[in-house]
Amino acid sequence: MITHISPLGSMDLLSQLEVDMLKRTASSDLYQLFRNCSLAVLNSGSQTDSSHELLSRFENFDINVLRRERGVKLELINPPEEAFVDGRIIRSLQANLFAVLRDILFVNGQLSTAGRFHQLNLEKSAHITNLVFSILRNARALHIGEDPNMVVCWGGHSINAAEYQYCRNVGTQLGLRELNICTGCGPGVMEAPMKGAAVGHAQQRYREGRFIGLTEPSIIAAEPPNPLVNELIIMPDIEKRLEAFVRIAHGIIIFPGGVGTAEELLYLLGILMNPENSDQVLPLILTGPKESADYFRVLDEFIVNTVGEQARRYYRIIIDDAPEVARQMKKAMPQVKENRRESGDAYSFNWSLRIEPDLQVPFLPTHENMANLNLYPHQSPEKLAAALRRAFSGIVAGNVKEVGIREIRQKGRYKLHGDPAIMRRMDDLLQGFVAQHRMKLPGTAYIPCYEIIK
Amino acid sequence: MITHISPLGSMDLLSQLEVDMLKRTASSDLYQLFRNCSLAVLNSGSQTDSSHELLSRFENFDINVLRRERGVKLELINPPEEAFVDGRIIRSLQANLFAVLRDILFVNGQLSTAGRFHQLNLEKSAHITNLVFSILRNARALHIGEDPNMVVCWGGHSINAAEYQYCRNVGTQLGLRELNICTGCGPGVMEAPMKGAAVGHAQQRYREGRFIGLTEPSIIAAEPPNPLVNELIIMPDIEKRLEAFVRIAHGIIIFPGGVGTAEELLYLLGILMNPENSDQVLPLILTGPKESADYFRVLDEFIVNTVGEQARRYYRIIIDDAPEVARQMKKAMPQVKENRRESGDAYSFNWSLRIEPDLQVPFLPTHENMANLNLYPHQSPEKLAAALRRAFSGIVAGNVKEVGIREIRQKGRYKLHGDPAIMRRMDDLLQGFVAQHRMKLPGTAYIPCYEIIK
Amino acid sequence: MITHISPLGSMDLLSQLEVDMLKRTASSDLYQLFRNCSLAVLNSGSQTDSSHELLSRFENFDINVLRRERGVKLELINPPEEAFVDGRIIRSLQANLFAVLRDILFVNGQLSTAGRFHQLNLEKSAHITNLVFSILRNARALHIGEDPNMVVCWGGHSINAAEYQYCRNVGTQLGLRELNICTGCGPGVMEAPMKGAAVGHAQQRYREGRFIGLTEPSIIAAEPPNPLVNELIIMPDIEKRLEAFVRIAHGIIIFPGGVGTAEELLYLLGILMNPENSDQVLPLILTGPKESADYFRVLDEFIVNTVGEQARRYYRIIIDDAPEVARQMKKAMPQVKENRRESGDAYSFNWSLRIEPDLQVPFLPTHENMANLNLYPHQSPEKLAAALRRAFSGIVAGNVKEVGIREIRQKGRYKLHGDPAIMRRMDDLLQGFVAQHRMKLPGTAYIPCYEIIK
Amino acid sequence: MITHISPLGSMDLLSQLEVDMLKRTASSDLYQLFRNCSLAVLNSGSQTDSSHELLSRFENFDINVLRRERGVKLELINPPEEAFVDGRIIRSLQANLFAVLRDILFVNGQLSTAGRFHQLNLEKSAHITNLVFSILRNARALHIGEDPNMVVCWGGHSINAAEYQYCRNVGTQLGLRELNICTGCGPGVMEAPMKGAAVGHAQQRYREGRFIGLTEPSIIAAEPPNPLVNELIIMPDIEKRLEAFVRIAHGIIIFPGGVGTAEELLYLLGILMNPENSDQVLPLILTGPKESADYFRVLDEFIVNTVGEQARRYYRIIIDDAPEVARQMKKAMPQVKENRRESGDAYSFNWSLRIEPDLQVPFLPTHENMANLNLYPHQSPEKLAAALRRAFSGIVAGNVKEVGIREIRQKGRYKLHGDPAIMRRMDDLLQGFVAQHRMKLPGTAYIPCYEIIK
Repeated sequence: MITHISPLGSMDLLSQLEVDMLKRTASSDLYQLFRNCSLAVLNSGSQTDSSHELLSRFENFDINVLRRERGVKLELINPPEEAFVDGRIIRSLQANLFAVLRDILFVNGQLSTAGRFHQLNLEKSAHITNLVFSILRNARALHIGEDPNMVVCWGGHSINAAEYQYCRNVGTQLGLRELNICTGCGPGVMEAPMKGAAVGHAQQRYREGRFIGLTEPSIIAAEPPNPLVNELIIMPDIEKRLEAFVRIAHGIIIFPGGVGTAEELLYLLGILMNPENSDQVLPLILTGPKESADYFRVLDEFIVNTVGEQARRYYRIIIDDAPEVARQMKKAMPQVKENRRESGDAYSFNWSLRIEPDLQVPFLPTHENMANLNLYPHQSPEKLAAALRRAFSGIVAGNVKEVGIREIRQKGRYKLHGDPAIMRRMDDLLQGFVAQHRMKLPGTAYIPCYEIIK
Repeated sequence: MITHISPLGSMDLLSQLEVDMLKRTASSDLYQLFRNCSLAVLNSGSQTDSSHELLSRFENFDINVLRRERGVKLELINPPEEAFVDGRIIRSLQANLFAVLRDILFVNGQLSTAGRFHQLNLEKSAHITNLVFSILRNARALHIGEDPNMVVCWGGHSINAAEYQYCRNVGTQLGLRELNICTGCGPGVMEAPMKGAAVGHAQQRYREGRFIGLTEPSIIAAEPPNPLVNELIIMPDIEKRLEAFVRIAHGIIIFPGGVGTAEELLYLLGILMNPENSDQVLPLILTGPKESADYFRVLDEFIVNTVGEQARRYYRIIIDDAPEVARQMKKAMPQVKENRRESGDAYSFNWSLRIEPDLQVPFLPTHENMANLNLYPHQSPEKLAAALRRAFSGIVAGNVKEVGIREIRQKGRYKLHGDPAIMRRMDDLLQGFVAQHRMKLPGTAYIPCYEIIK
Repeated sequence: MITHISPLGSMDLLSQLEVDMLKRTASSDLYQLFRNCSLAVLNSGSQTDSSHELLSRFENFDINVLRRERGVKLELINPPEEAFVDGRIIRSLQANLFAVLRDILFVNGQLSTAGRFHQLNLEKSAHITNLVFSILRNARALHIGEDPNMVVCWGGHSINAAEYQYCRNVGTQLGLRELNICTGCGPGVMEAPMKGAAVGHAQQRYREGRFIGLTEPSIIAAEPPNPLVNELIIMPDIEKRLEAFVRIAHGIIIFPGGVGTAEELLYLLGILMNPENSDQVLPLILTGPKESADYFRVLDEFIVNTVGEQARRYYRIIIDDAPEVARQMKKAMPQVKENRRESGDAYSFNWSLRIEPDLQVPFLPTHENMANLNLYPHQSPEKLAAALRRAFSGIVAGNVKEVGIREIRQKGRYKLHGDPAIMRRMDDLLQGFVAQHRMKLPGTAYIPCYEIIK
Repeated sequence: MITHISPLGSMDLLSQLEVDMLKRTASSDLYQLFRNCSLAVLNSGSQTDSSHELLSRFENFDINVLRRERGVKLELINPPEEAFVDGRIIRSLQANLFAVLRDILFVNGQLSTAGRFHQLNLEKSAHITNLVFSILRNARALHIGEDPNMVVCWGGHSINAAEYQYCRNVGTQLGLRELNICTGCGPGVMEAPMKGAAVGHAQQRYREGRFIGLTEPSIIAAEPPNPLVNELIIMPDIEKRLEAFVRIAHGIIIFPGGVGTAEELLYLLGILMNPENSDQVLPLILTGPKESADYFRVLDEFIVNTVGEQARRYYRIIIDDAPEVARQMKKAMPQVKENRRESGDAYSFNWSLRIEPDLQVPFLPTHENMANLNLYPHQSPEKLAAALRRAFSGIVAGNVKEVGIREIRQKGRYKLHGDPAIMRRMDDLLQGFVAQHRMKLPGTAYIPCYEIIK
């Protein structure tokens, strides 16, 4: 089956050179990246967290960029049937396909000059931030005339029914207050608040509702964007994705999740506890239904016992009170605005937030890098947070990312070294995630990809 | 508590005379009508089917129209708290409040001239239709540039969870096909397809989604508009409401329901079986989840055994196949368009549909009128359908409308006479509705308001 | 030649009764009115001030209202060729044709109830004002969200090149300040400020530019709307047109003109000098190029010597300084806004302005009425202004309106009686208009339609 | 005087690196370019063709880019007063200022990578075309959904009143047919058709009217954009500007002009006479008022006697018939569309037009280059046309461009060699331009910058 798809939302015009870039190199990495991300988009809404499964199910899928008199077209060969209604592609998928094309061409165009010019040196912090900004601007995700209203929601893709409903309720309450949602763009917590907010927005006749899905190539196939995402953005790697999250966030809510969620919380503490960020205003709420009270108690204890009691200053835990969560977020927005105005910073992109290189530079989860992580006290809390974030990041890779899974298959489990107390806390936390089925979607038994060397 | 509300969507300018009309007569019927409809809107989404309960809960509610330099404002005194989020009225309720004001002023302006002039003679069929048209046009509900896409959904306000979910699924499938929804604007079937369609529309990035709620003064307080209704229209009485439904419909779906639903189906058969309408194209689908298969079997049998086998030509029953329902509707739209073009009729308002006076002229459910209904064979099927429709209409009144309930309280049950076979069928059908809790929302025992004299 | 025209801007849906109203009565006054106004619109931009000439040139022109599946269509038979470009009607004419239809149907609908009901009693001041409001609201000419910005420009349709260019310059300066223009919708002063403002608006990227043309049936054929009018409104008679002007104006500029302009100035003084309007803020500027300095000197003297010195408090004369005129208008807008806010009055319609019945009730320029005018001192200045306004109004009718011209042809010139000093001043003023070719377009000799009995 | 200007239309967000680029290098070429182009924009509408005069009049003008919380701002120090109305910048100038910023940053970003990468090699034809495309796309000048409607108007900046009025009339006729205008963005022919089209568009209620001004750094200060330009685009040099003209044109009209106009016509013939372009459809009309009939006769003879009789196949001369010019253009549009569809080419950018390197590569008008031009027969007509185009291009530079004027001042007049017959024709043509005051704006005596060595 072959279908031709017209652009929606972006990328309606390509130059001959750009088309060639994706054509000539049909066998290359760039083409593979483009094909796989497109395939993930076409699987929007499918309940899977296995890239491998998804990719192997559609081995005969192919995609070509065509130039036509009225602009660009995409030729899809053997696309998933679910992407179509009565033979016509679902329009949100259509738009997201072209978002993939847009980001891949843009990032490639930017990166091809990197390292060679003064403009972009991706080992310099300012230049990484500049790239993150440029990608978001190119995706028209940075709106000028708007007051702060973007709430980043983090949490697991694999959550239970009570948690899902709670996330949805929080979403409705956020939507009723005309707040927008940004998530990691897969199922579970990445979807539920958007669903809720859509209803809240509708009740308020708020037509500008934004549901941003921020993803990256190594995760998109395992967490295909849910169908509500109306702004899909593909960042080049996990660190730039995390940086994009925190620089566009006006507030962050963390729902129950697994290792990825722990990674995100530690990433954030690694930033907020940095003394250079002491003037920042970024409301952070950890919340879940009453059934999840225990989950947050354990997470809170882990934080306090590793990076220390003072971490608590940066977050607030609210159990089972969706309206209160939304009310707190809404109340904080004028403070965020005031803070940006005082520092002369953009409302749509937090330039002044300091992010240290150890949080910016991509962490490759090789066995060596994992083994070398410094998981000991006697360093500043933000340093320890950053190291713990890398440990969790590696475990996520070992769980769901192709490259990590391959590594584990070849060399066995990652071995983590560190302070015995810290390591014990970490093991407890991770065992809890396993027990609560937070590592993988239900139905697949979890085999740990790490080993803690106490 | 006193709040001032600005206009949204309509009625931003009133003349001094118009304001006086609602002010001077603060004690009058017109003011009461305005106050009660407004109160119903402010209770959007509340789960009740008792006008009395709603009205008595908010006895100290009051509303005033004020003229201000930037236009009209509504002053609300002691409004329901649920209509507000953090002290600000929910915008869909705000818009619907002004829709109430719009329709009440307009209908009153039109009716005040009725009967006295050649322009409007409400006993003449053409003039009734003209009034229905004028109200819809004044509400900007008749869109010119659009191809047929309006699906009227009928069914009960009190349905079970499986039915609710099924209605929602049908809604999603309709929404994915960019069809719009018009219902009677309360809970249950009046809400579920809208909820589903909202998600379907979002997936298709269809921003013009229309959720029309058609109601009338005697029912609005018992079935407050659900929060998804984005076009609320208040017709002067039940017959004009039914006429509005069929003239703006491009297709009709009947979900499981109670007496009101039976009334609607018979009203429709009374029209479609009229030989003068033999050229009309109006797709009609009866559908429900597999659990409701029995319900439709009984209803189908009732129809066949009263108005006759040929009635089946006008509807199709589809059990438990939401995509198929939507697919059939979508497929019929070009035929509807073609049919309108051939007859030179408007796409947005079906002028050429013939509706006999016995379906147009308001039926007052007095005990006398009920007793005099001709429920015997030996008349054309459309006549019998019209008579049966009146019988069911009276029962709806006796169940949920203030005026009917008062009648019953004073004079006992309605007494229905008719052909024994027909009466037995009718009794069976009604008993079934009682058994299936379709007469009233669960939690209230149903006491029949009628007696069948076999 | 027969053409079918689709609606643009308004009136896309008519009921069967409405279509019948214009059809059935094809021989009636209403149809004639509709036909003649439509013909005038189709002659937009033609340089004529003779209704008779225009109407007789297109005697075989005809117009029919048709109902079609996509709404209303107008059928034009033998329309003027200039209304078309390559066989397609110019879109501003298309929109204005439907504005004619809209206003004629609406006014007729309103008037048919007048006098019979409490709603509309056209001898009561409040009811006349209410009708003016309703017509403007129905034409969507009253915008809610806007700050005061509407400048009414009065002056002659027959002006010289220097005056035309000056009016245009003032228009550009007004446009650069994002002010909108309302005129009487013919050529000359009715056109030049719009042309200028269009360029000013374009330079400011102001896309909402409003060019309102306010006319009435007896004048439209003599002064066909110029092609820049993008909101054409047809008031039922000259007094309601004048009332519409002053109630939507946020400021008024009077350019050089003839008797009609004198009528307008006296109408305005009749209002502004009324003690009940002492709190009103309505900036009034008389302006022209340096060549017109003398014109304004004479007009000023006439005013001072008839209604008195204190009249000068209400206007300001600015000679040959277009930017200053615009600057003064712009500067006054916040004061107008403040004044409306204080009095609780609408920004878009000045309800609180008091207009006495002698300015509101239509004045029929019969020989008897003209002869009976009280043109003597010993009355309040606003009364005298109102009487003088009627005198000038009659002369305008005698000059260019069909009914007036017929009267004059049958019964000879109007005879005006009054105080000798006033009458001499009046004669001088009128003689000046004749000498300056302000009575008729150049090329036609002017034969006075009045006689002053000193 | 210091003013801060907010973005309009584009460039509302800059990265820190981009701001630095214009800041750090305040003394550099890039900054000077930015400052001078901005100054030219602020002089929109001023009647001058001397860069030097303009630049020296505003020596103390300065401009800075600032980053603010709500996006970018421009700080203007001592800007020309005429750019402001009551202290606020005219909005079209505001938008054009940011267009300057947009194009300078974009071109600089692209060029900084040029020559070093495979992406952009500015000596390769495909890469030059690609850059032209990228600049236009970045300026959002390539609209996808539109049928061909862009008419490029060429001709002199210094024309007489009759010609100006005629150009305006042609503009009105084009505007009435909803065609858009692209010119070189200065006064004269660059302005008049836009003024006319604005009125035509207004009559057609055509709100999407596009008035593209294509300029380049060496000409912008001598020909500041006229105030109607609503899309200002700054191409890097004259050859890319010419290429942009022909690739976005759907039709071209040449009005009377001077050397620049002759250059443009020869450039076009150099393309159209290329056998590889034999399938192209690009209507080309030479037109002027009856007073200009002689001008076109002379130009036509020059063409026939140099590049040959067959050149006439590519253009049509229409004298004094504005509606006919517009009618012909309008009639050609469907043919242009059909031609693009057949060749699979974009409607908004003519990729398939072959432009030889001798027309693409910048021609530096040094004395040596001018002397070396091959102005002899015995070459293909398109080659000769290209050589003649360079000769005229050099003379334009010597007349109005800073660099050319400097060259002439230092080294005397350019010396042109060639075939005696051709040279005599050329001399006659140029003498005619001088006699008709087409070389410079009236008021300045013209001193030739060239010498023809016969």
